[in-house]
Amino acid sequence: MHLDTLFTPQSIAVIGASTRTGSVGYTLTENLLKNGYAGKVYPVNPKADRLFDRPCYKSISDISQAVDLAIIIVPAGIVPTVLREAGEKNVRAAIIISSGFKESGAEGKALEEAVIAIAREFDMALLGPNCLGFLHPALGLNASFAKRLPHAGSIAFFSQSGALCTALLDLTADALDFSHFVSIGNKAMLGENELLRYFAKDENVKTLGFYTEGLTDGNTLIRTGREILARAEAKPIIALKSGTTTAGVSATSSHTGALAGSDRAYSALFKQARIIRATNLEQLTHFLTAFSHNPLPESNRLAIVTNAGGLGVLAADAAVTNGLRMATLSKETQEKLTTILPKAGSALNPVDVLGDALADRYLAAMEIIVADDQVDMLLVIMTPQTMTQAKGTAEAIVHIKKQSGKPIIAVFAGQDSFADGLAVLQKNNIATVTYPEAGAGALAALAQVAAWRKEISATLFSLENIDREKAAIVINAVKNENRPALTEKEASVVLMAYGFPFLATYVVRDKGEATSAAEKISKKVALKIISPDIIHKSDVGGVMLDVEPKDVAEAYEKLMAQVKERAPEARLEGALVVEMAQKGGLEIILGLKKEPGLGTLVLAGLGGIFVETFKDTALRFTPLTREDTEEMLHELKVYPLLSGTRGKPGIHLETLIMMIARLSQLAQDFPEIAELDINPVLAFPESENFRVLDARIRLEK
Amino acid sequence: MHLDTLFTPQSIAVIGASTRTGSVGYTLTENLLKNGYAGKVYPVNPKADRLFDRPCYKSISDISQAVDLAIIIVPAGIVPTVLREAGEKNVRAAIIISSGFKESGAEGKALEEAVIAIAREFDMALLGPNCLGFLHPALGLNASFAKRLPHAGSIAFFSQSGALCTALLDLTADALDFSHFVSIGNKAMLGENELLRYFAKDENVKTLGFYTEGLTDGNTLIRTGREILARAEAKPIIALKSGTTTAGVSATSSHTGALAGSDRAYSALFKQARIIRATNLEQLTHFLTAFSHNPLPESNRLAIVTNAGGLGVLAADAAVTNGLRMATLSKETQEKLTTILPKAGSALNPVDVLGDALADRYLAAMEIIVADDQVDMLLVIMTPQTMTQAKGTAEAIVHIKKQSGKPIIAVFAGQDSFADGLAVLQKNNIATVTYPEAGAGALAALAQVAAWRKEISATLFSLENIDREKAAIVINAVKNENRPALTEKEASVVLMAYGFPFLATYVVRDKGEATSAAEKISKKVALKIISPDIIHKSDVGGVMLDVEPKDVAEAYEKLMAQVKERAPEARLEGALVVEMAQKGGLEIILGLKKEPGLGTLVLAGLGGIFVETFKDTALRFTPLTREDTEEMLHELKVYPLLSGTRGKPGIHLETLIMMIARLSQLAQDFPEIAELDINPVLAFPESENFRVLDARIRLEK
Repeated sequence: MHLDTLFTPQSIAVIGASTRTGSVGYTLTENLLKNGYAGKVYPVNPKADRLFDRPCYKSISDISQAVDLAIIIVPAGIVPTVLREAGEKNVRAAIIISSGFKESGAEGKALEEAVIAIAREFDMALLGPNCLGFLHPALGLNASFAKRLPHAGSIAFFSQSGALCTALLDLTADALDFSHFVSIGNKAMLGENELLRYFAKDENVKTLGFYTEGLTDGNTLIRTGREILARAEAKPIIALKSGTTTAGVSATSSHTGALAGSDRAYSALFKQARIIRATNLEQLTHFLTAFSHNPLPESNRLAIVTNAGGLGVLAADAAVTNGLRMATLSKETQEKLTTILPKAGSALNPVDVLGDALADRYLAAMEIIVADDQVDMLLVIMTPQTMTQAKGTAEAIVHIKKQSGKPIIAVFAGQDSFADGLAVLQKNNIATVTYPEAGAGALAALAQVAAWRKEISATLFSLENIDREKAAIVINAVKNENRPALTEKEASVVLMAYGFPFLATYVVRDKGEATSAAEKISKKVALKIISPDIIHKSDVGGVMLDVEPKDVAEAYEKLMAQVKERAPEARLEGALVVEMAQKGGLEIILGLKKEPGLGTLVLAGLGGIFVETFKDTALRFTPLTREDTEEMLHELKVYPLLSGTRGKPGIHLETLIMMIARLSQLAQDFPEIAELDINPVLAFPESENFRVLDARIRLEK
Repeated sequence: MHLDTLFTPQSIAVIGASTRTGSVGYTLTENLLKNGYAGKVYPVNPKADRLFDRPCYKSISDISQAVDLAIIIVPAGIVPTVLREAGEKNVRAAIIISSGFKESGAEGKALEEAVIAIAREFDMALLGPNCLGFLHPALGLNASFAKRLPHAGSIAFFSQSGALCTALLDLTADALDFSHFVSIGNKAMLGENELLRYFAKDENVKTLGFYTEGLTDGNTLIRTGREILARAEAKPIIALKSGTTTAGVSATSSHTGALAGSDRAYSALFKQARIIRATNLEQLTHFLTAFSHNPLPESNRLAIVTNAGGLGVLAADAAVTNGLRMATLSKETQEKLTTILPKAGSALNPVDVLGDALADRYLAAMEIIVADDQVDMLLVIMTPQTMTQAKGTAEAIVHIKKQSGKPIIAVFAGQDSFADGLAVLQKNNIATVTYPEAGAGALAALAQVAAWRKEISATLFSLENIDREKAAIVINAVKNENRPALTEKEASVVLMAYGFPFLATYVVRDKGEATSAAEKISKKVALKIISPDIIHKSDVGGVMLDVEPKDVAEAYEKLMAQVKERAPEARLEGALVVEMAQKGGLEIILGLKKEPGLGTLVLAGLGGIFVETFKDTALRFTPLTREDTEEMLHELKVYPLLSGTRGKPGIHLETLIMMIARLSQLAQDFPEIAELDINPVLAFPESENFRVLDARIRLEK
């Protein structure tokens, strides 16, 4: 697709240009003309001869020169006509600003499909509809109706919400510089994946960011994100997703459904795609600042320099809470610091240069600290004390940043007193925030991406002994009967075909059969009466637990006798001999859940009565790599019990990992599975003792 | 104490005044003189005759007029001398700015104690030492060396960190107005409790706030906070506490110790004291803004008005996450909204007035919404769109605020474009933030205080059947023997004396005694061999479980026989007959932990193997009210299992509540208990089945 043509056009036609002040057609044309864009701009409007002191064209076909980009502002109903005209004129990129498409109901949706078809027919790159346009500051190009063109920088940002675009541009006017700023509207053709891939290849882009209200292709995003992370030059991606509580957590029939609320699905998706998720709009701006102005750190050891002890502690708290380690300064570093600090200062991390620190003391302290190998990154905190030199300290920070190559964030906890210092930081691309906790949080995000870069490997599972055919027969039969769900028995057959261990079960008619069944099982068994007339087996003595194989014959007779006595009318057809599960297993829940548009989630976590209580589950989208699977288990709070703790043995982890891998394979082989619950599988230190006790499978409607 | 004299002095002597620019003595004197303070100011400095164009005194005793307040800036070593001089001159309030006291080691600590003694001797109110002083804007009084005197307002704020004071004053210069702003330094005499009580009585104060790095009297804070909450006029208290991760989580010998990290203790303390805890410095400023400019809401139902859908969703997410409910607008309200909104707008909450909304549409929408009984508070979000009228919309918000009396927070998500609008909001005391999530979080804090106000009751427990004497005998014996901990047996005697149910246990010597013991127990029992030579009883067949009372005689003989066979050398002294606990109980942990300075924490939560995994425990300081205890249980994630869920019966809650009450009583009766662990107590639907299986008690060294 012609994305270069879209974002770097030589000539632009504005279809729907206008001189009515305040109208979109006016604002957009004016924005194109007033910011120094060097290409041609052709206003198109059948009602005018001249606009903005230049010729105005009745239609795009009247323009004799070539046009790269058409910006379309006309009412939705006319859009297909003008888009076709543009296509016929060989225009290869278009922005549809107009609304009235998918967002406005069925009619609009049909219109949007018509528009997509035309764009495809003419091989056009299409942005929108229902968007603000885009800004490309390095070209002086404001192809949008947003007021402000930011400075040219290295952040490519795009947003599904136009209003959020204008808010973000205004809020970050002095702090963030953008390579591109794009409003993607309805994403008819160009969505997150396309733009991420395109901007990742642009050498002027160092950081990628986006705001989304919903994605439609989770698997592609995972691939895209991982590919971008794996590139020689790191280009971190930051996302903000709204709808964390209100968006469709559908009430479903199973645990997996209830737990895999769509917000958690997005968290899993971003994690798998190696995309940093900001928790709110303000944090998005902090993360964009931090990433665009810093390299990635070597590791996660943070040093803090502060002229206010209290703020140093607040920052250290936030750092540790967010997974950073406070660097242990070397003896040498501490000694050097002692020589330059007053007696009351602290040469331990956080390093307190005290309230009377001038710029030179900050400079000396920072120089010593960043030279320490134990330090991966630096947070410099300054509060406005009587003698504080904001400008000088800012210059010292700039100097250190240039010299050290380690990530640095400045926390300037003041307003008016710091104006000149802040200007220096900004001009020199020092990431700056106002509050200590925000600075620590942003550095933690940097460290997360650095850690991801180190473990980029993706090991595929090789699975044996899978009888896909057998599972297919069962599932197809259920589909043919139009049933929404498999019976328990059917579910067990499917899962056994994929290697899941169920309790051994035999139907027996007499004590001889019972004995030989128990001998095959060769462990303690349960006996359960089989009768079409008995619902609650226990009530009539129809269940016996923990029977040794040698006692089974006697037990069978006793079972029959006591049921006959208590339910004389019932027809007795024999008994089930069921293996008793090993005692003391840890109850694990496993599951699948299809998230419309995103893919199929695999769930693993603590099962049993605590499922709802602690929701201690981890989610990942299929297909799973070994790394995904191990990461899932590590994410669980219950992980120490799985891996063993305080001298207590854990469970056989590899067995659980392979079960999750088989579940992922099952989901891939049968995309018609909408939901699957295994609750519980009993897990043990010994692989051979694992047993699935209960499983349910529901198919897509 | 003479706090009025301290904070509203008629005359002030500055001991250590100076004309050396940049010195504290200079800055402080200048601050006193330049802000319009109407009282007298007397510089005191033996080296000068005149200072700041007025007479300078050699010592305070040379001043012939009366002096209310002495501000002391001289080196620490001279402070006792000048303080005594001040006392002798009848000065009843002093601020010691100087450092070099408790914070600087043993010598300084002795000096601080000397200073306290002098202040007590002369009945002086003493602020500091090691502080910045205070500001009282309504008097034009800046008795500190902070540069800036804020506007007079209704927030009384005090801080343990001086640097945080200056940072906060600078950061909130345009947003927050203070009645008093106090740096409390080492808190030698005046700490949080004294200032909270004093400012709560001041009719100019509406909101209280403080920053602390550590408290020394938890129980008093709980009383103080609750008393202030119960006053006719609500005066919410907001606190920021640092050291959430780094501060002394001491490695201790028990679960209770490990779980009751000091940060969680502070969270419990603030909750019990009904103090809102801000999670970071920025949030502190938001909370102070929100509380000082708003009444408390009736309940927690929030309505949102926005000109940007995306930001509305972000706010709704944050609101629900923080415990607010999104108001369900009445049919009537929705209909009215439909008449004033364009077709594409949303009359559902969040109400989307669309990007082209002018001030009049905001005004109309807000008028309709605040009139709805379903709405307790309003968040108004504005982003800078092309036609947005910042000033007009701000005026509309001011109008609505005056008219409705419901809490309102404005989210103005822009900078430069909103300058004139922001000025209007500020001038009219509208709480304003920049980001939607912050606004929702602050309204949630308001709703929390409103909820606390409704449930101010504190019901004391009346406990029966407590044998304090019996427990005292055991504990005194352990203390006399200088042992740090009680044996298991001793711990069980103490707890049984306080009504805790242990498993019935009998020592028996023959099968006859065994049978009569089992008959007394009259449930299944376990038999355990008693022998000084056998450590692992199970290994030699020395334990039999689940024995029916009728089978006990036979089982006793079998036990003896098999142990004799497997351990022929061992001396056998009989057996224990121990009641078997009911199967299927929920394992609960209960505990006590003394937090130095703060009080004794009571802990309750999920016991068993999941204690460390989920740390699902709740903490409260003794003495517990019934409301505290019920709140604790409600706080647990496992609460639904305790109260019963999905048709499954819960446990007998009242039994658990009374156990916790007894634990609180035990802690009060024996303050020498440093730590107590009950893990587990097995809990059941039937009160009579509860049993403590294991308990440990450690005493203070």
